[in-house]
Amino acid sequence: MKGIATCEATANIAVIKYWGKRDDELILPKNSSLSFTMDEQLKTRTTVMFLQDLKEDEFWLNGKKMDLKEKEIAERMKQLDIIRKRAEINEKALIVSINCFPTAAGFASSAAGLAALAIATLKAADLNLSGSETSIFARIGSGSASRSVLGGFVEWRKGEKDDGSDSIAVQIAPASHWPELRNVIGIVDAGKKKISSRAGMKQTIATSFLYPARMQYIEKVIEEMKKAVIAKDFQKFGEITMRESSDMHAVMLDTWPPIMYLNNISREIIYAVHELNSIEGKIIAAYTFDAGPNVHIYTTAENVARVQKMLQEYRKCCKVLKVFKR
Amino acid sequence: MKGIATCEATANIAVIKYWGKRDDELILPKNSSLSFTMDEQLKTRTTVMFLQDLKEDEFWLNGKKMDLKEKEIAERMKQLDIIRKRAEINEKALIVSINCFPTAAGFASSAAGLAALAIATLKAADLNLSGSETSIFARIGSGSASRSVLGGFVEWRKGEKDDGSDSIAVQIAPASHWPELRNVIGIVDAGKKKISSRAGMKQTIATSFLYPARMQYIEKVIEEMKKAVIAKDFQKFGEITMRESSDMHAVMLDTWPPIMYLNNISREIIYAVHELNSIEGKIIAAYTFDAGPNVHIYTTAENVARVQKMLQEYRKCCKVLKVFKR
Repeated sequence: MKGIATCEATANIAVIKYWGKRDDELILPKNSSLSFTMDEQLKTRTTVMFLQDLKEDEFWLNGKKMDLKEKEIAERMKQLDIIRKRAEINEKALIVSINCFPTAAGFASSAAGLAALAIATLKAADLNLSGSETSIFARIGSGSASRSVLGGFVEWRKGEKDDGSDSIAVQIAPASHWPELRNVIGIVDAGKKKISSRAGMKQTIATSFLYPARMQYIEKVIEEMKKAVIAKDFQKFGEITMRESSDMHAVMLDTWPPIMYLNNISREIIYAVHELNSIEGKIIAAYTFDAGPNVHIYTTAENVARVQKMLQEYRKCCKVLKVFKR
Repeated sequence: MKGIATCEATANIAVIKYWGKRDDELILPKNSSLSFTMDEQLKTRTTVMFLQDLKEDEFWLNGKKMDLKEKEIAERMKQLDIIRKRAEINEKALIVSINCFPTAAGFASSAAGLAALAIATLKAADLNLSGSETSIFARIGSGSASRSVLGGFVEWRKGEKDDGSDSIAVQIAPASHWPELRNVIGIVDAGKKKISSRAGMKQTIATSFLYPARMQYIEKVIEEMKKAVIAKDFQKFGEITMRESSDMHAVMLDTWPPIMYLNNISREIIYAVHELNSIEGKIIAAYTFDAGPNVHIYTTAENVARVQKMLQEYRKCCKVLKVFKR
């Protein structure tokens, strides 16, 4: 049926982080990033309908009508108007979005939501674009959403052009490439962030003494990471993943005033992962932290039980412990 | 009396940090550092006696006989042999050292102890050296001890020479220069460090991606800091102090495996200081953290009460709150 589409997208976890924009309006990043799009446990399903009788756009999220005049929501929904303009559509849109997440809180992912919105809106507008082309629209809502339009191991290339046309997501390997890979998520704190990523990364670029140095080597780290994933070399992959996480949190700490997302539990889990790897004599678990204290521990299927056992000690502090593919 | 001397030294707090050696043997630093030598509340008093009848060196610390064969202690006491050789003394030494610290734990300072040892040993050996010359011997025991041989605002110059003869402490301003300056110390955790500074800084140099960038701008920051202190410009002084502290902890976090000294209380105090300054509309308090979670908040006499009031909230977590001059 024309003018109506229902599409899905799942969350993604960056192993090379996106922290810093070269263009605030078009959401163009300072550096390329790499992520795994997760399995369907963290999925957003969105229906977009262009309706002639509708007087205003409506956006229903998890059964609740959202205020599209609210600045933060309006900014994230900008892609809707851009797509409408491109498709020469005049109808208003009714958007219904449901996060099919585990009931426990703390799994919110704007990436899945804004990727699903871009895919569904483009489809409802009858625009037939590739995944990489679709990523450009997802990016407008949330930078990391650009990676969620594709499955598996995805690179969001920073691009060079001012108009952002080459800042696209590209699949480096499909999900089937590394079927043994697992991601154990520990929700340490489901509370709201002290500072949003959007504001935080802006501050880092403006003030951190160390940030320019990070920009000098990160594209090289990306190439190393791609090689490690393609070779399914967990040693290399694990080391780069952990170092990259700390490197991002270091430039956050170096921001003025400092941005600190890791808490005591995060720190203890970091030490515990190093201890586990040290006992094993090799890397079997690798943590990564986004802009928050929640931990993602990458491991392989055979070692999931060991990672879970290690995290048992923090069970009281980790509200949720869940295992994902990728 | 020849062959006997009793001398004192007080602790110092670095506002531009020393983290990284260019020579492990001679304890030569990668960068210059700046500190305030504190008031006499944190003082070590040491007596050195060269005695003909003594068969072996003896070292009594706070009434307890220390094992000079223990590797860590032996390394820190190396200056004793170096001074003895230079003064052509053959006698063994009896050393009695007392930390005149507040009874509560967590105030340990190797800097005061090793500075007092250098001063007393040189005096007992009848070598009449300047403060800067003395700092070379103190440095052998503990890098930061070099700064404690002088009072007031002190620079430990990194020097260029391989033999370390130009890596000396120099007084930039006497204690009387900024009499209003106060240092409120909160002992957050009196426990033993997870990793020693000595091992930690070595690891940072070997592994941190960000550390070389820090080395590129730190000498410039030192010049700015010297200007701010000489002008008694608390705004500049406070901002540089806080940023420098975070910058060091950022390269610690960027170390592989990561070194993390700041805990939840440290983080909350950092946020509280920024909030206090924001309410005031100017910087009236500035935190700095060494290789541990304990906080030093610099302020001026008129604002000590406000800082103490702010810290009241963390009283349960801060075992000790004490005010020092400088």
